[in-house]
Amino acid sequence: MRTEVPTQQPLYLGIDGGGSKCRVVLMAADERVLGEGLSGPANPLRGMQLATASIIDATKQALDSAGLPHSAMAKLVVGAGLAGVNLPEYYQLFSAWQHPFASLHLTSDLHIACIGAHQGQDGAVLICGTGSCGLAAVKGQLLEVGGHGFPYGDNGSGAWFGLQLLQQVLRSKDQLIEPTLLTELLQAEVACNDTLRLVSHFMNASPTDYARLAPLVFTAAEHGDAVARQIVEQGAGHINAIAERLLTIDPQALCLIGGLAYKVEPYLASAVRQLVVPASQPPEHGAVWFARQAIASAVETGTT
Amino acid sequence: MRTEVPTQQPLYLGIDGGGSKCRVVLMAADERVLGEGLSGPANPLRGMQLATASIIDATKQALDSAGLPHSAMAKLVVGAGLAGVNLPEYYQLFSAWQHPFASLHLTSDLHIACIGAHQGQDGAVLICGTGSCGLAAVKGQLLEVGGHGFPYGDNGSGAWFGLQLLQQVLRSKDQLIEPTLLTELLQAEVACNDTLRLVSHFMNASPTDYARLAPLVFTAAEHGDAVARQIVEQGAGHINAIAERLLTIDPQALCLIGGLAYKVEPYLASAVRQLVVPASQPPEHGAVWFARQAIASAVETGTT
Repeated sequence: MRTEVPTQQPLYLGIDGGGSKCRVVLMAADERVLGEGLSGPANPLRGMQLATASIIDATKQALDSAGLPHSAMAKLVVGAGLAGVNLPEYYQLFSAWQHPFASLHLTSDLHIACIGAHQGQDGAVLICGTGSCGLAAVKGQLLEVGGHGFPYGDNGSGAWFGLQLLQQVLRSKDQLIEPTLLTELLQAEVACNDTLRLVSHFMNASPTDYARLAPLVFTAAEHGDAVARQIVEQGAGHINAIAERLLTIDPQALCLIGGLAYKVEPYLASAVRQLVVPASQPPEHGAVWFARQAIASAVETGTT
Repeated sequence: MRTEVPTQQPLYLGIDGGGSKCRVVLMAADERVLGEGLSGPANPLRGMQLATASIIDATKQALDSAGLPHSAMAKLVVGAGLAGVNLPEYYQLFSAWQHPFASLHLTSDLHIACIGAHQGQDGAVLICGTGSCGLAAVKGQLLEVGGHGFPYGDNGSGAWFGLQLLQQVLRSKDQLIEPTLLTELLQAEVACNDTLRLVSHFMNASPTDYARLAPLVFTAAEHGDAVARQIVEQGAGHINAIAERLLTIDPQALCLIGGLAYKVEPYLASAVRQLVVPASQPPEHGAVWFARQAIASAVETGTT
């Protein structure tokens, strides 16, 4: 059974392109979801060829699921929020892409997350997942904080928590501090007591590998482990600092997003917590909204 | 003019094999230096083929400089201190090497540094360079501390200092803290004020890249920068903790080695500082001493 597709009206495609996957949604002008697609990394830092192939792949899936031919790609008004396009060189690379769409409107993945979360209204988002970063959009002003990457940035992120854990456990293995519950939990997690093997296990570990350890810190803290509590307080302090910086442009609502967000929330300042609202829509919906807004403002200013 | 080489007596070769270079010394039985050699990485973590090629290359240079034929390799009693052979898998790999020498006696680069520094006597060494680690050798007991690698270990090392610096500067660029002299110094160092370019500069930075920034932290601290002072105190605290752990087996002397050692020394506890002595001999001389001792003890126990 095929969805009825209004082919006379514009079709919108929203793309959320991250470092590990690309999620797209195909929408009618009346905001009905016609189709969806999911593919690999669409982050230009991983290579333009891979990124554009992921986008095309996910788009074809969305057209297939809507019962539309791939040739309909040429009619799509596309909004794309891509990790990495906040770096000018990657923005330029993507702007120069000979894309197969009617139009392509680019912004960062963080920006479409914020637009989706607040349904296009002003507001702020704070991501606390593998990485950490925040964005506030108020009266046309965009304020981005953090998200610079690991290990020099992304303070208070999952990767950061995992790294602190491993650092403390290695200090305990060297008998520089007393072993705590953290040592026990990590050794159980990686099924290894030996320091050299533990180190081998994390040689060349990715931010994602470290982030997998983050929940252990919260578990230990909940059991009263003093070292874990100190890490949690420091990490939440980093996240809180991002939030308070976002609050300087006075957003009226803040969405916490990412796997660690609900773990960190209780430790945030009350001025931050009282602004927290659940996210309305996912980032790829925000990308559609971004494209529609870009076109509307182009019409307004007479550039289209 | 050729050195007179006593070919009837055993010849010793000492190898200091690190992650970036391999340094060897050729010695007569009477401890006269006959030749030297320097080549690339001899760390099995970078690949066995590269490591053994570096060793052979440096050995040939040493034989050349002593005016000896390469065939003399088969007569050499070799002591090798290699980074990475504290990991059992790499020790085994190197033990299985069909080397061209009369004999090969393996230990870690840290161990030969300690033997060289104290001319084979009991003592301790504390490395504070790109990485950080320590070793104490007392009455046959070896205690190794730290040196697990970056970023999860090597606390208080040059790489650690550089990472703390970059973290604080990025926090200041995000206006999470006030910019300090550190921000100014780093921006001047990498000739870049822009946050995104700064981040691009350090994306995929190696421990060596971070360690290059370490002196800036000490410069800022000396000018009274509060954030820099806090980093210095924390880093010196890590180095001090390693030293105090080494002191638990009661070494009577401690050598500080590495580019950052003299910067950190004033911040160490007085119980640590009063044990500090200059290193007697370089690690490759310690490697010769290690080989001679290995042979002597084999003779004593009748295993040779």
